[in-house]
Amino acid sequence: MESELNREEAATVKPIRCIVKLGGAAITCKNELEKINEEDLVTVCSQLRLAMMSGSLSDEVLSLDWSKRHGGSVTVPVVEDFTDQLVSGSNNFVVVHGAGSFGHFQASKSGVHKGGLNQPLVKAGFVATRISVTSLNLEIVRALAREGIPSIGMSPFSCGWSTCKRKIDSADVTMITKAINSGFVPVLHGDAVLDSSLDCTILSGDVIISHLAAQMKPEFVVFLTDVLGVYDRPPSEPDAVLLREIAVREDGSWSVTTPVLQGTSKEVEITVAAHDTTGGMATKISEAAMIARQGVDVYIVKAATSHSITALSGRLKDDIPEDWLGTVIRFVR
Amino acid sequence: MESELNREEAATVKPIRCIVKLGGAAITCKNELEKINEEDLVTVCSQLRLAMMSGSLSDEVLSLDWSKRHGGSVTVPVVEDFTDQLVSGSNNFVVVHGAGSFGHFQASKSGVHKGGLNQPLVKAGFVATRISVTSLNLEIVRALAREGIPSIGMSPFSCGWSTCKRKIDSADVTMITKAINSGFVPVLHGDAVLDSSLDCTILSGDVIISHLAAQMKPEFVVFLTDVLGVYDRPPSEPDAVLLREIAVREDGSWSVTTPVLQGTSKEVEITVAAHDTTGGMATKISEAAMIARQGVDVYIVKAATSHSITALSGRLKDDIPEDWLGTVIRFVR
Repeated sequence: MESELNREEAATVKPIRCIVKLGGAAITCKNELEKINEEDLVTVCSQLRLAMMSGSLSDEVLSLDWSKRHGGSVTVPVVEDFTDQLVSGSNNFVVVHGAGSFGHFQASKSGVHKGGLNQPLVKAGFVATRISVTSLNLEIVRALAREGIPSIGMSPFSCGWSTCKRKIDSADVTMITKAINSGFVPVLHGDAVLDSSLDCTILSGDVIISHLAAQMKPEFVVFLTDVLGVYDRPPSEPDAVLLREIAVREDGSWSVTTPVLQGTSKEVEITVAAHDTTGGMATKISEAAMIARQGVDVYIVKAATSHSITALSGRLKDDIPEDWLGTVIRFVR
Repeated sequence: MESELNREEAATVKPIRCIVKLGGAAITCKNELEKINEEDLVTVCSQLRLAMMSGSLSDEVLSLDWSKRHGGSVTVPVVEDFTDQLVSGSNNFVVVHGAGSFGHFQASKSGVHKGGLNQPLVKAGFVATRISVTSLNLEIVRALAREGIPSIGMSPFSCGWSTCKRKIDSADVTMITKAINSGFVPVLHGDAVLDSSLDCTILSGDVIISHLAAQMKPEFVVFLTDVLGVYDRPPSEPDAVLLREIAVREDGSWSVTTPVLQGTSKEVEITVAAHDTTGGMATKISEAAMIARQGVDVYIVKAATSHSITALSGRLKDDIPEDWLGTVIRFVR
């Protein structure tokens, strides 16, 4: 029944240009509980504005956040200013963000990801986790709105998304599609959700991106992170090499094509090493490979840099400049 | 298709004890933009806790809000405390709140209720309104969670609710039902939504309550407001009389049964007067009458009083004490 709905909607949906992931590590301060990296978030939102407007709008930014800020006052808009300056819906984006220093504490303290809502601690942690991640979602929606982006917060839980054994079970994109068709930019997030087998679990932003990409077939997907891209070992190690291009084959297997690595055995070794040690990057490559396999280019890039604005602009589809730093993951026939 | 789903769900849904509306005027400061009436909100949440637990839990309140408060720190929970003290799901509640001094400014400034998303001001106002009402929703979810209530914020927009010519068009309660079945207390709110005829409009908390009551058939519905109940004229007028009982008939018509008013013509006059002058009360009575017609008792009562805790406890079903102040609206055969 769900797929019928989706097919119906698919006929009328506006094409999606980009699904962008705001990595938790990029927009929050990793080592401080529930602290947003305000400076980088402002830059990220401003870059998104540029990417969405494609240079067709005036420079003047009209904030769509008319609410009080902590200890501050309400920005009273001048009604007459709202003529045609809004960020247009021609470049349709969907934003998904991770949790970073929001939600993780609450989830890990209670074991929400393991399920078992009959345990009071898990149930409490579910509530606490959702409060934390929806707080972050609201702040990100507001930061985007202050850049004139018509952002709309949409929690996967409220959208009716659920899992079975931690895999997406029900994830109707109808409402997200409707929001896009109405000219809005949906902002989703990693969330605590119901699981038909475990009672509940955590649905990560990366899995959401993968599902949305499969359903919506965007032109490209951008992961904004806190490092330049994917490395062959933890980027903190002195000899870490940035992997510039990863090719994904029909069967889902992938290999590094740039830089050229010495010998096949070495290549495999790197693949394994990446899985074992880079914490999080393995999942990211696997999910990215799944997306790329469908013909959707994936760019993993450091947030709030000149490289991220290049990736968000979509220019990498035609040509990857020599001085661009980041990881491109794409399908090769 | 939706009704099929609903029928399917209805078979397994736990009975709902009460749907409670937290009136915007009761939980926010009417005359100050985006200001919560903290004192009354704490009392309201504490009364809800008592009503939900039916005296079966310990007095110790374990907060389920583990997030930072403005300028404050995180309440780190003691894991061992979470044994069986959580507010149980035996008395299932759904909470719906109004906007009060949140959202109204943004909505009225831009004319969101009139629709027309092709106008930049309306689109901007839609985003601004949702930011404001979801901010309030988060604060209410947190206030409930601090009283140990497993509250889950659910925005009607994200739940996929939409209207056609301002009337509810699509409003699937499946996810709300699932949340309740998992032991949570869904917290909905008046929201900006998409409208298939006008592009967008405002869906009020009162209309949401009416729809939920029809779908979920709770034992009773409580409206918490900032006055004692429904009066025959604006309660600020010196001669205003509190209407204690209103009887609703099969055809939806209603009349005041207590206090006994002199003559039938007088009764009708009051009915009309209430529609004309009490601003908001007319809609409230009409919506309440619609609910009562289905055999669901409706209590309109002042929030954070001894009268509200009596109403929330469900004791009024059997007997209305002499000293109870409020308005009971119910079906008479």
